[in-house]
Amino acid sequence: MEEIKWDARGLVPAVVQDERTRDVLMVAYMNKEAFDLTLETGKAHFYSRSRNKLWLKGESSGHTQEVKSVYVDCDNDTILLVVDQKVAACHTGFWSCFYRVWDKGWKIVGKKAFDNEKVY
Amino acid sequence: MEEIKWDARGLVPAVVQDERTRDVLMVAYMNKEAFDLTLETGKAHFYSRSRNKLWLKGESSGHTQEVKSVYVDCDNDTILLVVDQKVAACHTGFWSCFYRVWDKGWKIVGKKAFDNEKVY
Repeated sequence: MEEIKWDARGLVPAVVQDERTRDVLMVAYMNKEAFDLTLETGKAHFYSRSRNKLWLKGESSGHTQEVKSVYVDCDNDTILLVVDQKVAACHTGFWSCFYRVWDKGWKIVGKKAFDNEKVY
Repeated sequence: MEEIKWDARGLVPAVVQDERTRDVLMVAYMNKEAFDLTLETGKAHFYSRSRNKLWLKGESSGHTQEVKSVYVDCDNDTILLVVDQKVAACHTGFWSCFYRVWDKGWKIVGKKAFDNEKVY
């Protein structure tokens, strides 16, 4: 079995896609512990590069990601999680973190799923 | 307008999603030049970290990506390209680079779109 190629920091990027809508929701980073915990628990775990710690997605908001499938890419250095996203992926209140599209500048086109001032 | 936050190497990851099938095809990296050329030409350009050079996706295979929409994430450090993928995204011949799924080991589940020994 070909193993995941962790980078110099022990991380790989993980793309998260919602199973039902097929929307790309976010990209976060995993270390081996986050990867193993994701497989073990069926809930997406990541490693925060800014806080230097493991996190369970949704640990503060309750907006967890139930993992349906885990893919690896041809280079063994990127993960794709297909998930059932609860409520919304983005801490800003948008369903997807990719809520702005380029149109001679970044224009908001995403949908707000919750009021982020009430959740955090 | 909030600007893209290029990392210490001047790069950001870019997720590529096919518009028609909504499949996640690949993740590659962009520098500012690749981003600008992508907007200018409507064809996906990336920066190769291994070859240290700009590349037009499909420059050797002809399997270009016609860019339909360009999104940025909430942190301004990840791009999502929604594209019309010609033939296949992966140099291995698979439609998507994410052709292996975890099932007590990596199992091939993707579809071969072309014979990679004949194209490269």
